[in-house]
Amino acid sequence: MIVTDSEHRISDICAEWRAEGLSVGFVPTMGAFHRGHLSLVEIAVASSDRVVVSIFVNPMQFGPDEDLDRYPRNLEKDCKSVEELGASVVFTPRTDVVYPDGFSTGVYVAGMSEGLCGAARPGHFDGVTTVCAVLFGIVRPDLAVFGMKDAQQLAVIRRMVSDLRMGIDIVAAPIVREFDGLAMSSRNQYLSVEEREQACFISIGLEMALVLFRMGERNCEVLRNAFLSKLEDAPLLKVQYVETVDPDTMLGVEQVEKQVLLAVAVFAGKTRLIDNILIELEV
Amino acid sequence: MIVTDSEHRISDICAEWRAEGLSVGFVPTMGAFHRGHLSLVEIAVASSDRVVVSIFVNPMQFGPDEDLDRYPRNLEKDCKSVEELGASVVFTPRTDVVYPDGFSTGVYVAGMSEGLCGAARPGHFDGVTTVCAVLFGIVRPDLAVFGMKDAQQLAVIRRMVSDLRMGIDIVAAPIVREFDGLAMSSRNQYLSVEEREQACFISIGLEMALVLFRMGERNCEVLRNAFLSKLEDAPLLKVQYVETVDPDTMLGVEQVEKQVLLAVAVFAGKTRLIDNILIELEV
Repeated sequence: MIVTDSEHRISDICAEWRAEGLSVGFVPTMGAFHRGHLSLVEIAVASSDRVVVSIFVNPMQFGPDEDLDRYPRNLEKDCKSVEELGASVVFTPRTDVVYPDGFSTGVYVAGMSEGLCGAARPGHFDGVTTVCAVLFGIVRPDLAVFGMKDAQQLAVIRRMVSDLRMGIDIVAAPIVREFDGLAMSSRNQYLSVEEREQACFISIGLEMALVLFRMGERNCEVLRNAFLSKLEDAPLLKVQYVETVDPDTMLGVEQVEKQVLLAVAVFAGKTRLIDNILIELEV
Repeated sequence: MIVTDSEHRISDICAEWRAEGLSVGFVPTMGAFHRGHLSLVEIAVASSDRVVVSIFVNPMQFGPDEDLDRYPRNLEKDCKSVEELGASVVFTPRTDVVYPDGFSTGVYVAGMSEGLCGAARPGHFDGVTTVCAVLFGIVRPDLAVFGMKDAQQLAVIRRMVSDLRMGIDIVAAPIVREFDGLAMSSRNQYLSVEEREQACFISIGLEMALVLFRMGERNCEVLRNAFLSKLEDAPLLKVQYVETVDPDTMLGVEQVEKQVLLAVAVFAGKTRLIDNILIELEV
């Protein structure tokens, strides 16, 4: 497996693969891999001839008061893990490679990037879409894999790829959870023992809403309240938002008709955790 | 020559060419061709195996009080002209093809798109960069040709293509002028006889500045004033801006060191005309 910080090396390698008729899968990440990330790589390896994993902690998607500086980094271990899974290249660009001197271009997705996490983290999704446009331009993959935990990111990236005719198949990977249901996140390691214990109530609350739905409840306010009342059992958790939205457009939904994404953001101390569950009528 | 409004047909044709190893040149236009446009097509034909010309009057780059509705259209004549020059395909998409239902993505170039025409026409360049990103995605050309009359557009597009690693060679075509020096523009046909007569003072003013420079003047304020004083001979013309900028960054320059773009926008009645001249030290 090749590990390189050189943009030109990556684009040359990928161009050679394309010329040989090999399909290229891509997993853009910020490193600090947990099993969620590794599942993305597994999916990419299973569905592409060659797989590029990028590890880049993108300053543009962090707010001024966020955890850019303390965001976990573990390059050596990360590379070892994805090599074992069959990735072909790890791309570890420096910030001044991704954003060279004079870089001025931004890509945004209006509307659907503005609610939920977009409202809580102004500019975050502009940073995500811009860095993905850059990385997609360098790698030119046939497909790219994104996790469903970041459901809004997935919808925003899909919209950008479709609108700008990037011709990349965006594959959604299911959320991977800890033994107690907590969604895997690089930020889980920030949690104190007590916060970690209570954090499982996030996924339990989502499951509660799903149970209600399966019992016939279709009113989204009732489903949201089911989540909120479960969170009352976890005094260290503070809900930032709980919303029911269309998973493609991120527009609010008040009645389950086909499918609804129940998406939440919760603070455990200073640590912000997100999770979601897709609620859908069986056809 | 093929004329089509189908996005899929265009992208299929271009994909076939690429698979055959043929290079694709692209000339994105709004139609109503004059010799300036035709020179762009000539350059593309001379430097590519196949040439796609798009004709799309892009609503997104017009302001609410601008001339979108009366912008000249002449599809049949346009197609005939570029066929004679050797273009392979003319792409004439409808607005709902370029911007399908739910389209939400924008591409912008911060800084360099905000002065000059960008200050006079808020949102204009965001419309230009977004539509070019879409059209580049559909066509995937090896090179694209843009006219130097729209010098700021050229700089902005170059920046976007470089920042987003689009891998397209952006070729600049020299300004084509009428017999009296007036830069060719689809908007020249809006001019009254009297306005048309005086419009030649724009290029004469630019030439005056160049003459002064060749006589040794390096102070940009003096060069700008040379233009302005020439315009006093044309009472129907009202200067919107006259600026001296770096042609790559569009940042203001006050002393000619290597090269400076003297760029102007002038109203003749309601018709807005732009022109520019590159002032550079011979090496």
